[in-house]
Amino acid sequence: MAKLLKEMNKAELTKIRDEMQAKYEQYCDMNLKLNMMRGVPSNEQLNLSNDMLSCLADEYVTASGMDCRNYGGLDGIPELKKIFADLLDITADEVIVGGNSSLALMFDNVASNMSHGVRDGEPWQNQGKVKFLCPVPGYDRHFTICEYFHIEMIPVGMNDNGPDMDTVERLVSADPMIKGIWCVPKYSNPTGIIYSDEVVRRFANLKPAADDFRIYWDNAYAIHDLDVNRAKILNLIRLCEEAGNPNMPLVFTSFSKVSFAGAAVTCMASSKSNCEFILKRLSTQTIGPDKMNQLRHARFFKNAAGVLAHMDKHAEILRPKFKLVADTLRQELGSLGIAEWTEPAGGYFVNFDAMEGCAKNIVSLCKQAGVTLTPAGATFPYSNDPQDKNIRLAITCPPLSELSEALKVFCVAVKLASAEKYLSESV
Amino acid sequence: MAKLLKEMNKAELTKIRDEMQAKYEQYCDMNLKLNMMRGVPSNEQLNLSNDMLSCLADEYVTASGMDCRNYGGLDGIPELKKIFADLLDITADEVIVGGNSSLALMFDNVASNMSHGVRDGEPWQNQGKVKFLCPVPGYDRHFTICEYFHIEMIPVGMNDNGPDMDTVERLVSADPMIKGIWCVPKYSNPTGIIYSDEVVRRFANLKPAADDFRIYWDNAYAIHDLDVNRAKILNLIRLCEEAGNPNMPLVFTSFSKVSFAGAAVTCMASSKSNCEFILKRLSTQTIGPDKMNQLRHARFFKNAAGVLAHMDKHAEILRPKFKLVADTLRQELGSLGIAEWTEPAGGYFVNFDAMEGCAKNIVSLCKQAGVTLTPAGATFPYSNDPQDKNIRLAITCPPLSELSEALKVFCVAVKLASAEKYLSESV
Repeated sequence: MAKLLKEMNKAELTKIRDEMQAKYEQYCDMNLKLNMMRGVPSNEQLNLSNDMLSCLADEYVTASGMDCRNYGGLDGIPELKKIFADLLDITADEVIVGGNSSLALMFDNVASNMSHGVRDGEPWQNQGKVKFLCPVPGYDRHFTICEYFHIEMIPVGMNDNGPDMDTVERLVSADPMIKGIWCVPKYSNPTGIIYSDEVVRRFANLKPAADDFRIYWDNAYAIHDLDVNRAKILNLIRLCEEAGNPNMPLVFTSFSKVSFAGAAVTCMASSKSNCEFILKRLSTQTIGPDKMNQLRHARFFKNAAGVLAHMDKHAEILRPKFKLVADTLRQELGSLGIAEWTEPAGGYFVNFDAMEGCAKNIVSLCKQAGVTLTPAGATFPYSNDPQDKNIRLAITCPPLSELSEALKVFCVAVKLASAEKYLSESV
Repeated sequence: MAKLLKEMNKAELTKIRDEMQAKYEQYCDMNLKLNMMRGVPSNEQLNLSNDMLSCLADEYVTASGMDCRNYGGLDGIPELKKIFADLLDITADEVIVGGNSSLALMFDNVASNMSHGVRDGEPWQNQGKVKFLCPVPGYDRHFTICEYFHIEMIPVGMNDNGPDMDTVERLVSADPMIKGIWCVPKYSNPTGIIYSDEVVRRFANLKPAADDFRIYWDNAYAIHDLDVNRAKILNLIRLCEEAGNPNMPLVFTSFSKVSFAGAAVTCMASSKSNCEFILKRLSTQTIGPDKMNQLRHARFFKNAAGVLAHMDKHAEILRPKFKLVADTLRQELGSLGIAEWTEPAGGYFVNFDAMEGCAKNIVSLCKQAGVTLTPAGATFPYSNDPQDKNIRLAITCPPLSELSEALKVFCVAVKLASAEKYLSESV
């Protein structure tokens, strides 16, 4: 099958279609139950942190003398603030430690700005139809937050080095109702790309028409490198400060894919002044975060270097999975000209672009054969992929043997759907 | 000093005032640093749960096979849902387990109803000026939530068996902009009273003008009895169901004063149908709660009976503190006719009513002498106690010796302020 599908005649296409159909039916008979739907760590990765379950024993007091069992400590315990600050290369007073979900921090920040405005400014909801820029493909849960708050989403294309900044700059400087943009600057979900220095600089130097415009910088994969030489992105908080936009960035990160996905700690980072405003709301919302879990993380990791050493162990587990995906896709689809995909150096996803009009069909074929993928379209606002070609492969959770099986089914589905597509066009 | 202050002549009053002034100055010289400000458990109480720090060891899977380390499980793990359901005498599908703060659950529910309406109804914020009934004295943090959302607070008087229900019924049935009421039905904060069966029945049978009216039933002290024979309140959820108001009650409770104040688990309970609506929002907000901490609680307490047995140990620690307060106040102030106070059978507070116009002065005198109390007025909406007489004594945190010291200062301040008040009136 070294020939490109588009160069095949009807007989050749029919032959491939029939072969794939037969293979596909075999898979369907196997009652597979495989899952590549969401960016979830594997058991093996979770096991890396099991010692955290007992690492506190009888300890519950911070170095500063705070009893973590009791109320208080709204912004987080000093030990953990320092770890997050060191990892993000900022200061501890630019950090607010959150609960177990960074999504909850983002949701709450949008909710706050909608109802109460940015820094006591006019609530977004009173200003007209609020709009967000959404680089695509992107993270579905960002889009769901916008949908929930009836925020209009404007898709912006992604290049290999970040969002299309010409478009971002043009739109942001022209429309005062554009209040935000969602970014995953390192190992972007799902494309895996890394924002270049130039892109980050252009973000910091945006001249928004809205003075209450905010960059939602979801640095979820800040330290999730596969390679020992960690990729670096520029420091948005520092660059914004230098550019005279100190309050524009809202940075989020999380240990969900560092320790336990459901029981980790998260953080939000911004200018000291922004943090102070956010803490005012927080003091109405809660009497304080779960400091015991913060202490658990601080004791287990000890410091930022400890976190990075721990991430090296994650990388060891994940590297063979990313390699398997790259090898399988290249081997099965490399010569056919029916798809493009990424080989990211970190993060949790492989981005797959099928032939136009084929993504929904491929995901549906896989589902019927017992392989669950992220729904086609999920990577676009309103679940609307205008070309119906993008598929996010979440490859971290299944064991290698299952991943291998799932990829075989996937590749058969891709070839089947592509052959059918060409055949339907040749009619 | 067996004579009532109001029957004393100027010379007698002056004598008392001078005696108290001298004592007060002695206290001021002692550089005391005592705190009766907030309802905080003591170290001794927190120690009761220290085994929880290591009780999980290598366990992380629920009986149903859910890995608590990973994502998911939005409504809570079955083990803990059952414990909360058993304690509240409802079913597990009427329970959503939350994070470490029940205040956060209440805040979020109000936020949700403001911006998105009750059960997809018209958002409260679009209907006009939203109003809440606030039985007074009440819990300051409830009032702070209302202030934050610009909700008008209407104070309603409290009787010994609950809020003045004639007024509640009249207002709720007349004004469709009254959307909620704050209740602490058992060991009410701060009065310590328990809602009678009749009061709970009248709540369940309210006929609100607003079909999106909600009862915020903050059952924070549901199992915080001092007496071995636990006080019972009627089941609002069941009664509302019977009265044809199944979606009216929103019940909240918390283990913050059961295990660790800052690192516990909380729950919200309502009709199954309400829970389903609330979970829809929750699925946009977060990928799931901290299930490890839920499992920690489920394993440590085992079941509802285990929780109650644990609460008996809390009661043993708290009983002498409540007794000390009752004894001291009776001994120091009992014969003077200048104050009234409660001797509650549970909860965290003693409610103290000074002479009209004296509360702020007493709290301020205490503060200058190093004894911090809840600010006067905090128990009323907008911190405005119209009679300036209510003081909340939060007595659980200090060790007995410190509590004893703080109470002495407090009683001197009460007598000093009262004598001054009479003297100023006799001029």
